[in-house]
Amino acid sequence: MAKQSIGIGLMGLGVVGGQVAKVLSEKTAILAEQVGCPLILRKIKVLPSDLARPQARRMEPRLFSTDEDEFFAEPGIDIVIEAIGGESPALEYLKRAISGGKHVVTSNKEVIAKHGVELLSLAQQHKVGLHYEASVGGGIPLIAPFQHSLVANRVSGIYAIINGTTNYILTRMAREGIDFASALKKAQEFGYAEANPENDIEGIDATYKLAILTSLAFNCQVRPDDIYCEGISRLGSRDFRYAQELGFAIKLLAIAKQGDKSVEVRVHPVFIPEESLLAKVEGVYNAVLVEGDLVGKVLFFGEGAGALPTSSAVIADTIEAAQDVMLGGEGRVRWKLSSDKTIKPMAEIETRYYLRVTVADRAGVLAQISKVLGDDQISISSVIQKEADSVAQTAELVIMTHPAKEEAMQKALKELSHLSVVKEISNFVRVEA
Amino acid sequence: MAKQSIGIGLMGLGVVGGQVAKVLSEKTAILAEQVGCPLILRKIKVLPSDLARPQARRMEPRLFSTDEDEFFAEPGIDIVIEAIGGESPALEYLKRAISGGKHVVTSNKEVIAKHGVELLSLAQQHKVGLHYEASVGGGIPLIAPFQHSLVANRVSGIYAIINGTTNYILTRMAREGIDFASALKKAQEFGYAEANPENDIEGIDATYKLAILTSLAFNCQVRPDDIYCEGISRLGSRDFRYAQELGFAIKLLAIAKQGDKSVEVRVHPVFIPEESLLAKVEGVYNAVLVEGDLVGKVLFFGEGAGALPTSSAVIADTIEAAQDVMLGGEGRVRWKLSSDKTIKPMAEIETRYYLRVTVADRAGVLAQISKVLGDDQISISSVIQKEADSVAQTAELVIMTHPAKEEAMQKALKELSHLSVVKEISNFVRVEA
Repeated sequence: MAKQSIGIGLMGLGVVGGQVAKVLSEKTAILAEQVGCPLILRKIKVLPSDLARPQARRMEPRLFSTDEDEFFAEPGIDIVIEAIGGESPALEYLKRAISGGKHVVTSNKEVIAKHGVELLSLAQQHKVGLHYEASVGGGIPLIAPFQHSLVANRVSGIYAIINGTTNYILTRMAREGIDFASALKKAQEFGYAEANPENDIEGIDATYKLAILTSLAFNCQVRPDDIYCEGISRLGSRDFRYAQELGFAIKLLAIAKQGDKSVEVRVHPVFIPEESLLAKVEGVYNAVLVEGDLVGKVLFFGEGAGALPTSSAVIADTIEAAQDVMLGGEGRVRWKLSSDKTIKPMAEIETRYYLRVTVADRAGVLAQISKVLGDDQISISSVIQKEADSVAQTAELVIMTHPAKEEAMQKALKELSHLSVVKEISNFVRVEA
Repeated sequence: MAKQSIGIGLMGLGVVGGQVAKVLSEKTAILAEQVGCPLILRKIKVLPSDLARPQARRMEPRLFSTDEDEFFAEPGIDIVIEAIGGESPALEYLKRAISGGKHVVTSNKEVIAKHGVELLSLAQQHKVGLHYEASVGGGIPLIAPFQHSLVANRVSGIYAIINGTTNYILTRMAREGIDFASALKKAQEFGYAEANPENDIEGIDATYKLAILTSLAFNCQVRPDDIYCEGISRLGSRDFRYAQELGFAIKLLAIAKQGDKSVEVRVHPVFIPEESLLAKVEGVYNAVLVEGDLVGKVLFFGEGAGALPTSSAVIADTIEAAQDVMLGGEGRVRWKLSSDKTIKPMAEIETRYYLRVTVADRAGVLAQISKVLGDDQISISSVIQKEADSVAQTAELVIMTHPAKEEAMQKALKELSHLSVVKEISNFVRVEA
């Protein structure tokens, strides 16, 4: 006999969990129609502090439990929604739920990025589904396309703006010509950056999300630590000025490329052509460009964070899990670790480079610099001499190179820094076409 | 016992059908892994002329049938892929397949737009799935998001560039300042417009796709004929020049808005702010912007047509159908005609307008025009006088209005055309913010 209702256990009543509870109670008819029976919220695992929230005080007290054993002992829970965040205790809770035969839905990028393969294997073993659409890109469908719509494709590349904080900061720097510190301060004032912003501005958050997307799209295990990562804090207002002059925007991109035997995964600032669609993604918005052999280029754009968009993804996953429960199946996602590809060492990647160097303002300097680059097989595409400082007797050189190996560029940068005419390697940024 | 293979019947071996057959034969391992058993192409319904194609000549002759009765008599077909296109005989074939208990996959926008509700009902009656991802936007996931990822949302609006031919023409007009006829000719030269381009340039193709998206997103039946439709042929190079001067791009947009009791559905050229993401969608690319109560704005972008992208969607649908066959289910899509909303009459819509009028070049003209507009409750936001022609003693007025009712604007246009100082209403275009 078909089930008469689906029981939901919710872990966490913070920003996301609170919104999920709200949608579960406000959209009961839509949800029931999609599933074929009502979804009933049976228990919420909360922290004692959550109980004072206005939302909690409007709900029935018997729903709450501050004790995880009590939560997991609740009968009639088919699906556990984890909205706690962070690695611990969320990982333990997810494992416990899965081992107890519950389908799980999570918005936890850190846990999925670090332990997704392990959790997926555990879920397959227990014949339940592991759903994590909300872990990347808020409500933008990003996981589902890789699991369903794009599944016939060999994905060759992913190019993603997947951190709203950094994109907001870069947008303000580009628009207003302000420096990084001022833009960060504005982001903090508007609530788009945390008091301790390191996780975002140093690119760590983006590595979590890229690890999730890459593992899924390339069927291999990419851990956050496998991903080369540079943040945005060393970008200066001059870099934006020169970028604009040269026809580029500066974005923090998460990039993944699939080769025959290796995958290339990196998060760092890049120059991208200003007419490209990714260059037009502004403020806290996210966008993910995917290249597949059949589909060509597709791009997904939207709000990458926030309670409402994240709840949209959590609820969609919950409906899918509930449909699986109704059908008596474990879900249809067939992800399998099937690739033995290695991570390409950063030294081997090849891109164009933008280079800003402060040099002595005298004849023959460019010849010396060109020789160093040329000796390292780096060919210059354009040079502009900028901002001569008559007091310090220095000038600024802005150099764009043709495609070159990262290893060669790093070697050249070291050699350049030893030239007496070079006062400072002021910055260098990779370029993506 | 689980099935050992899934049998596929393919109808049509044209551009799309040929590519689908190619993918089915080249990606057997990926497909089998997703489904849990191999997909086997058992029969292809072809036209006699198809048999001469190089592709057909490389395939086993026993696969082909030019007779539909023979095709439908083939045992062991679980899924029928319809890649014939057009209304007839595709509709009859789809009905016959469904009535015979086959799951169906189609890329046929005309059939789905005109008969989707009927086919869906037939499919539900026979407990099989009707899959049509490829009917809108090539390989861009558009149907799946509405059926799955966005299902918890109340969708308030859809704004779509869903015809590549017209977007290509408009892009060339905007970039090169050329007139419509020249841009159309170029589109035809590059194979982006058909010899008889009416279906595309008059917006009819876009109404099919909008009908499909709207019916799905709003749970109501919107037929192509319900959609107000204007093509792009009356746009002139001057309109692009003025649009750029005013900070707008011109796009053919398919627009759907959901109100409490009615839905607004229309396809026509619009001015959109040049900094909007849709304004940046160039050439033959498609993009669909969706607004939902939870997810906010999400945008899907990619190639809207072509054999490869379309095959990506057809194969994804085929995998989903095959998974349904394996699970013994009819699929999980729960679309139901649940809304009794009416189509909002065009007279009642409200937008801003761009108006280009050729007038006598003399004092007091603007006062007369302003009076007509004002009497019809249309308030002017800006006016620029342009292009005085000293020989003809005429001038061109470019007027942007504040939001006004369409009915009032149509009345005003009629009245303006009767003013002796008005030589010609040269154009008027709606504006979307």
